[in-house]
Amino acid sequence: MLWGGRFTGGQDPLMMELNQSISLDKAFYKQDIAGSIAWAKANHKAGNLSEDELQKIIAGLQEVEREWAEKTFQINKETDEDIHTANERRLSELIGKEVGGKLHTGRSRNEQVAADMRLWLVEQLRQIASWVEDLIKVITQRAEIEIEVCMPGYTHLQRAQPVRWSHWLCSFGNAFASDLERLREVIKRVNRSPLGCGALAGNPFGIDRDFMAKELGFEGLLMNSMAAVGDRKFVLEFLQWAVDLMGNISRMSQDLIIYSTAEFGFVKLADAYSTGSSLMPQKKNPDSLELLRGKSGTIIGQMVGLTCTINSLPTTYNKDLQESLKPMLEGVETVSLSVRILCGVISTLTIHPTNMLKALTPDMLATDLADHLVRKKVPFRETHHISGRVVALAEEKQVPMDKLSHEDLQGVDGRFGEDFEFDFEKSVELRSAKGGTSKASVREQIELLKSMVTS
Amino acid sequence: MLWGGRFTGGQDPLMMELNQSISLDKAFYKQDIAGSIAWAKANHKAGNLSEDELQKIIAGLQEVEREWAEKTFQINKETDEDIHTANERRLSELIGKEVGGKLHTGRSRNEQVAADMRLWLVEQLRQIASWVEDLIKVITQRAEIEIEVCMPGYTHLQRAQPVRWSHWLCSFGNAFASDLERLREVIKRVNRSPLGCGALAGNPFGIDRDFMAKELGFEGLLMNSMAAVGDRKFVLEFLQWAVDLMGNISRMSQDLIIYSTAEFGFVKLADAYSTGSSLMPQKKNPDSLELLRGKSGTIIGQMVGLTCTINSLPTTYNKDLQESLKPMLEGVETVSLSVRILCGVISTLTIHPTNMLKALTPDMLATDLADHLVRKKVPFRETHHISGRVVALAEEKQVPMDKLSHEDLQGVDGRFGEDFEFDFEKSVELRSAKGGTSKASVREQIELLKSMVTS
Amino acid sequence: MLWGGRFTGGQDPLMMELNQSISLDKAFYKQDIAGSIAWAKANHKAGNLSEDELQKIIAGLQEVEREWAEKTFQINKETDEDIHTANERRLSELIGKEVGGKLHTGRSRNEQVAADMRLWLVEQLRQIASWVEDLIKVITQRAEIEIEVCMPGYTHLQRAQPVRWSHWLCSFGNAFASDLERLREVIKRVNRSPLGCGALAGNPFGIDRDFMAKELGFEGLLMNSMAAVGDRKFVLEFLQWAVDLMGNISRMSQDLIIYSTAEFGFVKLADAYSTGSSLMPQKKNPDSLELLRGKSGTIIGQMVGLTCTINSLPTTYNKDLQESLKPMLEGVETVSLSVRILCGVISTLTIHPTNMLKALTPDMLATDLADHLVRKKVPFRETHHISGRVVALAEEKQVPMDKLSHEDLQGVDGRFGEDFEFDFEKSVELRSAKGGTSKASVREQIELLKSMVTS
Amino acid sequence: MLWGGRFTGGQDPLMMELNQSISLDKAFYKQDIAGSIAWAKANHKAGNLSEDELQKIIAGLQEVEREWAEKTFQINKETDEDIHTANERRLSELIGKEVGGKLHTGRSRNEQVAADMRLWLVEQLRQIASWVEDLIKVITQRAEIEIEVCMPGYTHLQRAQPVRWSHWLCSFGNAFASDLERLREVIKRVNRSPLGCGALAGNPFGIDRDFMAKELGFEGLLMNSMAAVGDRKFVLEFLQWAVDLMGNISRMSQDLIIYSTAEFGFVKLADAYSTGSSLMPQKKNPDSLELLRGKSGTIIGQMVGLTCTINSLPTTYNKDLQESLKPMLEGVETVSLSVRILCGVISTLTIHPTNMLKALTPDMLATDLADHLVRKKVPFRETHHISGRVVALAEEKQVPMDKLSHEDLQGVDGRFGEDFEFDFEKSVELRSAKGGTSKASVREQIELLKSMVTS
Repeated sequence: MLWGGRFTGGQDPLMMELNQSISLDKAFYKQDIAGSIAWAKANHKAGNLSEDELQKIIAGLQEVEREWAEKTFQINKETDEDIHTANERRLSELIGKEVGGKLHTGRSRNEQVAADMRLWLVEQLRQIASWVEDLIKVITQRAEIEIEVCMPGYTHLQRAQPVRWSHWLCSFGNAFASDLERLREVIKRVNRSPLGCGALAGNPFGIDRDFMAKELGFEGLLMNSMAAVGDRKFVLEFLQWAVDLMGNISRMSQDLIIYSTAEFGFVKLADAYSTGSSLMPQKKNPDSLELLRGKSGTIIGQMVGLTCTINSLPTTYNKDLQESLKPMLEGVETVSLSVRILCGVISTLTIHPTNMLKALTPDMLATDLADHLVRKKVPFRETHHISGRVVALAEEKQVPMDKLSHEDLQGVDGRFGEDFEFDFEKSVELRSAKGGTSKASVREQIELLKSMVTS
Repeated sequence: MLWGGRFTGGQDPLMMELNQSISLDKAFYKQDIAGSIAWAKANHKAGNLSEDELQKIIAGLQEVEREWAEKTFQINKETDEDIHTANERRLSELIGKEVGGKLHTGRSRNEQVAADMRLWLVEQLRQIASWVEDLIKVITQRAEIEIEVCMPGYTHLQRAQPVRWSHWLCSFGNAFASDLERLREVIKRVNRSPLGCGALAGNPFGIDRDFMAKELGFEGLLMNSMAAVGDRKFVLEFLQWAVDLMGNISRMSQDLIIYSTAEFGFVKLADAYSTGSSLMPQKKNPDSLELLRGKSGTIIGQMVGLTCTINSLPTTYNKDLQESLKPMLEGVETVSLSVRILCGVISTLTIHPTNMLKALTPDMLATDLADHLVRKKVPFRETHHISGRVVALAEEKQVPMDKLSHEDLQGVDGRFGEDFEFDFEKSVELRSAKGGTSKASVREQIELLKSMVTS
Repeated sequence: MLWGGRFTGGQDPLMMELNQSISLDKAFYKQDIAGSIAWAKANHKAGNLSEDELQKIIAGLQEVEREWAEKTFQINKETDEDIHTANERRLSELIGKEVGGKLHTGRSRNEQVAADMRLWLVEQLRQIASWVEDLIKVITQRAEIEIEVCMPGYTHLQRAQPVRWSHWLCSFGNAFASDLERLREVIKRVNRSPLGCGALAGNPFGIDRDFMAKELGFEGLLMNSMAAVGDRKFVLEFLQWAVDLMGNISRMSQDLIIYSTAEFGFVKLADAYSTGSSLMPQKKNPDSLELLRGKSGTIIGQMVGLTCTINSLPTTYNKDLQESLKPMLEGVETVSLSVRILCGVISTLTIHPTNMLKALTPDMLATDLADHLVRKKVPFRETHHISGRVVALAEEKQVPMDKLSHEDLQGVDGRFGEDFEFDFEKSVELRSAKGGTSKASVREQIELLKSMVTS
Repeated sequence: MLWGGRFTGGQDPLMMELNQSISLDKAFYKQDIAGSIAWAKANHKAGNLSEDELQKIIAGLQEVEREWAEKTFQINKETDEDIHTANERRLSELIGKEVGGKLHTGRSRNEQVAADMRLWLVEQLRQIASWVEDLIKVITQRAEIEIEVCMPGYTHLQRAQPVRWSHWLCSFGNAFASDLERLREVIKRVNRSPLGCGALAGNPFGIDRDFMAKELGFEGLLMNSMAAVGDRKFVLEFLQWAVDLMGNISRMSQDLIIYSTAEFGFVKLADAYSTGSSLMPQKKNPDSLELLRGKSGTIIGQMVGLTCTINSLPTTYNKDLQESLKPMLEGVETVSLSVRILCGVISTLTIHPTNMLKALTPDMLATDLADHLVRKKVPFRETHHISGRVVALAEEKQVPMDKLSHEDLQGVDGRFGEDFEFDFEKSVELRSAKGGTSKASVREQIELLKSMVTS
């Protein structure tokens, strides 16, 4: 191990199991090696390594990377407690301890693990951003094609007012676009360099931190050395974002699960995203969406767990911070899988416009009926009450509202003319203010969403 | 797969990855096979299987179990989405579909997975209970041996009153004993049988549920079939308990981390539970305790994640419930490891009684000084104030309280006699009411703890 | 204040706002006074108070209680930082400092607040237990009366198999009965006495802890003094239980919200538990159930918050523990309101058996069709596949399954006889194993539930 | 109420208690009235209100606002379920229903509450931002003044390397500066207008949404109407941020609590932020910091609670969203109080440089000793081991490292010269790379922090 000099007793095997992180942090082997190369270059610049030593170290590290890539790297279970130890150990085997033993000069694993995690996470988040863009594209494509389709809009899961199917799609397009905007801010904050901060107190060999940051593609420095090595807020900020995104995925899934019940019958998932029952031969279940909904809970847990772990820690590095690895790795995996699956579900979904239409009932135009009187200068608060009495009358007579006679309406309020039509399309088109359900408004939303993705 | 009859399209490979649970639920292979044997016997009893069919099925299942135990079982990645599917598929390969295909009669994976999970969890919890007992034993052993050692007791992390080191040990012994009591209640509630509940509506072949439950060692039935298949509260109850236990482990770790700082210097961890620094040669860090403290956060996350996932699900089985597997498996692993590591830490810890003694300062007897006047019939509220003024006087004079002269004390209050001693041992012994710091009180606590473990 | 002796500077007014707890803990005035009376009696027994002093103190405390009850108690904002301070301050005003100042002898607010909270919580939990019993009673009453009504049972929110409405009701009856069982265990653990533990080190005046515990109705002692004063796990255990209960309330609400959509149309909430829209006159929304569902999230938060606060605290009392007051008070309020509201919703709900019946479609008997061949000795795994092909055929022909001709069925499999009926009632009655949907099984469940409530 | 037209039955009083939000949302009375004035102006612009009607409405609303400001507004408990209802009810009383009843034309409370909450939150967040700036200023001021003071830097709470006290201060300055950066992004996302979105489907009277947004100081629109009314992610984003900030406050508090123990003795809180004990006269406890640490847990709970509540809701408005009011209000209060209290604690804190110096022990220079040989071209990995053996030797000889003789050192490794000094100041100055502990590096950090606050 890298720290044995003053130790005499051996470790409890259970302790080794608890303490090791190689099973997780080997995911960063590439970043760890890139970081070490940048470190060696900066130490060369600072006069700690000769040109020859630098070249040997770079060549050796590249060989180590090749072994990882080709899966021939042998982890030594006795000593390789983490990826940093494993890589340095192997480097020294390859190029000798005399030169290999100089790599870690002035460096601490505290800064190294923070750098590896940040580099890895930035790469993953950029990939995720492109998948979120794909998802928004699929949503806008369907929204464009199916803009004619009308369906009930719900509040409180009760039929409220008619909307376009595309309007519903865009409502989630909007949510994901907001997530994308925020993700770009998160990436910016993750992409800062802790290299040169040492264990906690900084670097005593005059290392050029800006140079290293630039070499590795970081966008700036984490300035204070104590703050830099003890900070895992960047993982938390990613997880908070992931909770936000998965929450939107979950709400979209919830709607689609309900819309795909026999009772609603608005949509049908492709076989590719459904499964059946071992007992009931007729079943076709929206398992994909249920798993997405379920995973939105799981990721809340990962975020909360790390929040609790970090919450009241003394400053700088404490070993508790090792608990940040798993939620980061699993969080990235969950989000990566979920965004792509939702994209697949949306793009292969069948919709049933006839069922949607059948679900549009005349009482959903009660607001339009009230507005009709508003246009005749009756105060809205009064027209709301009048329209409510029409609804009650229809319920009492057990007929749909549009089957009430003109006399019925006049019986409720004399100001009703004969010029009100129960027309869903017209109702939808009336809502033409920005962000509303009219065709023009929806088209404007689609264009806006497209512009956010292509920029 | 077990449900393909009505499906035509293939699955998205990402969906297969999302949907499969075999990577987790293979942990229950033994329980799944035991459950299937009990199921077969009950179906034989109900007339659905002949004696010959039953024997073939039992023999086949035992062979499947052998394959798992010997690690020769081949998972078919195309079809074996879970342990139930894998085992039934293999059984039919071994004994033929004609008989193997009868095993699942009247059964659903919904009841099967619930039964497997409960059987597995009960076994694990019993094991954990015995480790918690070991931990309490180690605590009481040290408490008995080191009963003479006194140390500062803290509130708000400020020195408060002297206590015995054993009293501090017993305070955690008490907490773990309470956890043990509660664990026994949790086990009882986990250990109930869902078998015979079908997918949601029960069993149409008159199966004897009590018989199956008894065969498998369940202590009772989950009565209603809809509730039984959709319930994962048993995992949550375990996780809630685990949060409780890990919270106590975390608080004990926190104390020991503080007590092992250079500044306190009360205890020193064995090398077996410490690690060093890759940069700073002098470091010996209490990593084991930091990891335990950190994991107490992680397990809160696992509990919260599953709580969120389940929270507003429609009744009976929804695929979201699959997300219960991982927190259960990982929760058990975390707890199992943590209890044993803490046990190791406590039993190998070195204590430094001299440092503890040095940390006992005379101001910690300010309460005793106030009580001294109480015994002279001065109201406590007044003596508290008087003693506070003595503290202030000592601070002002920059001497320890026990170095104030009799005149100094008399100057504060004339009722001070010369009979007050600044004696920590005496102070500790004075607290002789039940649960206090006197030797007799601590011994009583130790005996009580022992009785809870041996019963 | 009770602790001013050694302090010289004043407090920041913001700090006073942060530090005070009287705005919350005045809820325990009764418990605080009962505790003080028991304390005084025990001190009398121990020789610290004369008979006369005891009587004065008791009379004074009773007067203080009267002032609270009659809302004439004047809180002094400058000094009364908590209920203990307020009560003692007022007592001394009423009976004089000479006697009043003796009450706090050997006592600490640390033990006092723990005692007050526990006494108050036990009282509340017993009340809540009786409301949960009421809820179970309402459920069983409806289940008895409406046992004839059949409806679709769902898994994955897809129609699965027919069940009785009463079976669905009992599934929640079961969940609440399990909560009740667990609540009784929680109460037992809350109901233990910390009195006599002092600030952390116990009592130096030989106080009789068992006597005080008995006086106050506690069922036992919290033994170790350090553990007793720093423990808030009893609040957490209540909150964990509350999360469990509210989770069941939330799932029942979720079902009813879905069942009350226009599309399902199974149930209709009474006006007393619905609200309307300020814009849409036709709306009648199940706001009560949505609020219950929403509050299940809120209570998770309260539980998590306190868990985090306590998680890694050093032992004994730290001021962070004051944060336990609010979640306890609000948690009790939330649960108390929610259980009673759900009880009201269930007892006033209108059901629409015709709509339920209409939603029972022949494909829900696909399992029965498969079972029909099982009874002819065809292996289930094969019959499942055959039945699946029948489902597919009906979909292809766009007819309900029960409209397929005998020839159609024979075309799929020659073993189909003419003796299969698409009869929902029969299907429900076939599931007669314990916990199933047959009338007898449901009746057995109802009786069991009743017995759990009346005992 | 605003929605009574079709209702016949009365409400359960418990339901009214559950359903009302006026006890909370009256906090937004000002925003609600400003929103209504903008709404009236836009409706005037759209031709729905005459000039005369507009003026009457504005005058009436200003009168309502005056009543709130002067606390003469009378809430009608029967009807005023929320602030919107209360204000409209009162307006119509003041100016008559004929005109007052026209205000709500085309409007829904769904958009109204979202607008009120966003306006209110933006105002609060701007205030909080200025308090965070104050906190950073206090930190940099102390850091400038006390830059000479050295203290031990810790990792794992074990002495690691010497640092400047100002470096420790700046580490938190950095954390708060990062929070400030993020807060500005949050404000931008909160500050978008939902007005004109209706209940869910948009506005049918051609209202000018951009005009209203500008009137109210919003920075843009929430485009899609369905997304806008059902979105509470803005509250969550604030709470996520608050968790981040309070986490930093908590870690700083944790350090200071430890540094103010008798054992560390580095700092002493002002009386203004301390409290004492009702039992122990000598106690002075850092209650302020403990409460801040505790509240960091509470706010995690508030964030988690709302996350859970929202997580799987169907789209658009559901009543569950009402649960967002309380965590927003309480979260703002907690953060507002906490930032200012920490600011007070930091600015009044006494430090004890002598104790800090005493805690600097020679073994903290073990890395410098290793670096000493590195400068003689010995590979660091080897020098680390050598220095470790020196540490072990000193422990064995029970002397401080700086008391080992030159022979002792030479005995460990012959390359040790006589030129190594155990000099803490020198060690600190050696770490002169950016972000390190040298005076110049710390000064650079201070300047950077100042620039972030004054911009």
